[in-house]
Amino acid sequence: MTHRRDTSGESTHERILRVAAEIFARKGYHATGVAELGEAAGLQRGALYYHIRSKEDLLYDLSKRHVEEALERGRAVVAQDIPATEKLRALAREHLRIMAARCDEVTVVIREMHALSGKRATQLTALRDEYENLFAEVLREGVREGVFASADRVVVLGVLGMFNWTHVWLDTERGPLSPEDIADRLTDLVIHGQLRPTRHVAHPTAAPAAEPVPAAIP
Amino acid sequence: MTHRRDTSGESTHERILRVAAEIFARKGYHATGVAELGEAAGLQRGALYYHIRSKEDLLYDLSKRHVEEALERGRAVVAQDIPATEKLRALAREHLRIMAARCDEVTVVIREMHALSGKRATQLTALRDEYENLFAEVLREGVREGVFASADRVVVLGVLGMFNWTHVWLDTERGPLSPEDIADRLTDLVIHGQLRPTRHVAHPTAAPAAEPVPAAIP
Repeated sequence: MTHRRDTSGESTHERILRVAAEIFARKGYHATGVAELGEAAGLQRGALYYHIRSKEDLLYDLSKRHVEEALERGRAVVAQDIPATEKLRALAREHLRIMAARCDEVTVVIREMHALSGKRATQLTALRDEYENLFAEVLREGVREGVFASADRVVVLGVLGMFNWTHVWLDTERGPLSPEDIADRLTDLVIHGQLRPTRHVAHPTAAPAAEPVPAAIP
Repeated sequence: MTHRRDTSGESTHERILRVAAEIFARKGYHATGVAELGEAAGLQRGALYYHIRSKEDLLYDLSKRHVEEALERGRAVVAQDIPATEKLRALAREHLRIMAARCDEVTVVIREMHALSGKRATQLTALRDEYENLFAEVLREGVREGVFASADRVVVLGVLGMFNWTHVWLDTERGPLSPEDIADRLTDLVIHGQLRPTRHVAHPTAAPAAEPVPAAIP
């Protein structure tokens, strides 16, 4: 397969991926026809099939490219010689930058990844797990440094969920905030929690009995 | 429309919603045919259309029923006369209980809600906003009580995102933990943050200059 580039430097294959991400994000993967993809990319059916083998291939290719880029940028953060609190902040900033810049791809990966099957599903799941593991690694580093309270699985998935869920609201709710502003606020929430610094409500790991258990919910 | 119930007490309409949620969650809304839904519910095409007007109706009905139930339970929590920290915990527990009990509906609402159009989309968005607002209200109460540092929009969406994202991993990752255990751990994370209680890293709202700004990322 050749990768000719147009004047913007984008190859036909890249153009197809970009257009597919836009349409899949807007209409949904299953509701999008191959003919529609070809038309949006300015390609006849034959020409489109010269570049992709199937619609599922397209979903896989664009998802893979996106997760690999996120992974590469995340790995560069984790490799830095800085404290875990700063790594978490830098990882969050990269995450939010990607969310903002590649909104369509993020939406498609998160919403449509389940449509992949067989080897493609396995490979993409492995890449995603590797990305998630960057957050786990930084939290574990924080525990080793004696700074973070926990890196258990629920905490890792909670933190990751907070950052991943931004794809739902980033476009409509960020107002004048930059991706970095949002990353910083969420990182502060993860690191410091919601308690005002002057308040002394007992921390559960310090004195679990001091905080009353809520009454049963009717 | 009549609502006859079978021996389990489930009406035909409820059975259709349950079956649709299961298939939509597994295959995706757009990839599911009406014939398949009828077959799974044990109904001929004519009988199915006696109960529903369209596939989109079905998506709307099951989403609405789910969000309304969550709302009702959430409102009962917020109406209680307990401190904001306890309300947040109780709200999180209800949220996780629903996530665990209605996994299919949650997946469908989160993943397929964008497939709704017109008035249905508007109405479901309003219900969802009302549910989100319960979390905002509890955080604002905490700020009024002088306990929570912030109830700004990013914090509200961050907290909500952490809880909503559990639908992705609750089934596969919870291990021996109950929904309430997970709710409690995530609530502790939101309230207390990740810092070990013995550490004194400056809180950003207390002394923003004390925490070094991370170096620019290469």
